[in-house]
Amino acid sequence: MRAADRFSFNHATAKFWDQREAVEACARAGVGIGLWREPVQEMGLEASAKLVQDAGVAVTSLCRGGFFTDPTPAAIDDNRRAIDEAAALGAPALVLVSGGIPAGGTIDGAREGVQEALSVLAPYAGERGVTLAIEPLHPMFASDRCVVTTIGEALDLAAPFPAEQVGVVVDTYHIWWDPQVWQGIARAGREGRIASFQFADWVTPLPAGVLTGRGQLGDGCIDFKRYLAEVDAAGFTGPIEVELFNDALWARPGAEVLAETKAAFERVVS
Amino acid sequence: MRAADRFSFNHATAKFWDQREAVEACARAGVGIGLWREPVQEMGLEASAKLVQDAGVAVTSLCRGGFFTDPTPAAIDDNRRAIDEAAALGAPALVLVSGGIPAGGTIDGAREGVQEALSVLAPYAGERGVTLAIEPLHPMFASDRCVVTTIGEALDLAAPFPAEQVGVVVDTYHIWWDPQVWQGIARAGREGRIASFQFADWVTPLPAGVLTGRGQLGDGCIDFKRYLAEVDAAGFTGPIEVELFNDALWARPGAEVLAETKAAFERVVS
Repeated sequence: MRAADRFSFNHATAKFWDQREAVEACARAGVGIGLWREPVQEMGLEASAKLVQDAGVAVTSLCRGGFFTDPTPAAIDDNRRAIDEAAALGAPALVLVSGGIPAGGTIDGAREGVQEALSVLAPYAGERGVTLAIEPLHPMFASDRCVVTTIGEALDLAAPFPAEQVGVVVDTYHIWWDPQVWQGIARAGREGRIASFQFADWVTPLPAGVLTGRGQLGDGCIDFKRYLAEVDAAGFTGPIEVELFNDALWARPGAEVLAETKAAFERVVS
Repeated sequence: MRAADRFSFNHATAKFWDQREAVEACARAGVGIGLWREPVQEMGLEASAKLVQDAGVAVTSLCRGGFFTDPTPAAIDDNRRAIDEAAALGAPALVLVSGGIPAGGTIDGAREGVQEALSVLAPYAGERGVTLAIEPLHPMFASDRCVVTTIGEALDLAAPFPAEQVGVVVDTYHIWWDPQVWQGIARAGREGRIASFQFADWVTPLPAGVLTGRGQLGDGCIDFKRYLAEVDAAGFTGPIEVELFNDALWARPGAEVLAETKAAFERVVS
């Protein structure tokens, strides 16, 4: 498949766009979509599943499970529900953002919590045909959002489980700074664990809180062609989701954001 | 030496405090100081050297050289001057912040620029009794301030040079998230390359621009006792600088900030 045809639109890029409109627009554009649990639950799981099926749109991932560094029964139950939702939507991967450091805890302890949660959830996911996709987030989120910070660390966490149960997300925004990123991608390929491939660009200055500063593709310093080549070489040729948390994009009409993002994607991969 | 007696005050923690007052206050408090080039140049190098000598204060480092990812003759010359200044002040280490990605460049290319600059500067520093201390900065600064992001990467850059010429900075604020941080510190010790040890705490939310959000010791998630133990075990028992870039601290009188920071240091190491 031509790289330009691998584009998938993550709904969070137009966060406030109605899910039905977003899915139908992706159908018209001939692209896949990454869905989020909140809008899915708002519409209802069955209605959401029917929507994507009727539209003929591929759901490339469901965002997101995780937040289980303190793996309480409630956190585990919520993740089982997320796996069920991914299965019902036909999403091959459930993206996991691990969560930060529990109150009074340490980052090492939080990482052990992630391992513990995975050992409970991995077989459950496997039985439902869903791959848990561990997403390393940029280290600026390590205390409050995700203690998993590199591809290598995500692969170490995934190692005890079969690759169809636990994989990793390769998201350029979060890993581009890593001096071991190319080795990490190659290893993820060798181990068959690339479960999701996402693009966003790195731009500065970062906004307060740093959550909503992701750049449109081409606006920042990330060499997307290199990422495409390395991930291709690692054997992953599936969809590439573009997920931009960006206040300026969120303020604009979804259809416009979809068109602009698709065009930016085509530019950076051509 | 008791851990509490290893405190050194980095001038940037009270950035707008007059250098003479800061040095004299550190003398009265019986602690060392980390100096910055701009105030040193403002007072004049000879006058600054006389100031610290008369006060009997140990200059634990000079901040900072670097910004040589594009190693132009001007950048190299400026770093030679910084080495001369460190030597004149009796500072054992010149802290290097590498710089970000040059316009149109890549992070890999920028890292090669750092290696090239070091190969020119290391012998010059060695001849003057100054160790170049490569400081890995938090990856949120990787594009615009410092492409060196981990202790391991800094050690790889230092590897071609004798340890008395090129070492690394262990700064808790920048490296606490690294899943390989304990191995990195142990390796730095084995290779004799811990040239500076600095404390700052990690707190969120980060402010816009993310430069001035460092937390007072004890306000964040960093386990300073663990760092102290690991760096001790790695064989480094020298001074520990506290360097906090923090708008709220910068707005307060320097003497107050010094006293509060010294007290916070004693609490987190006791």
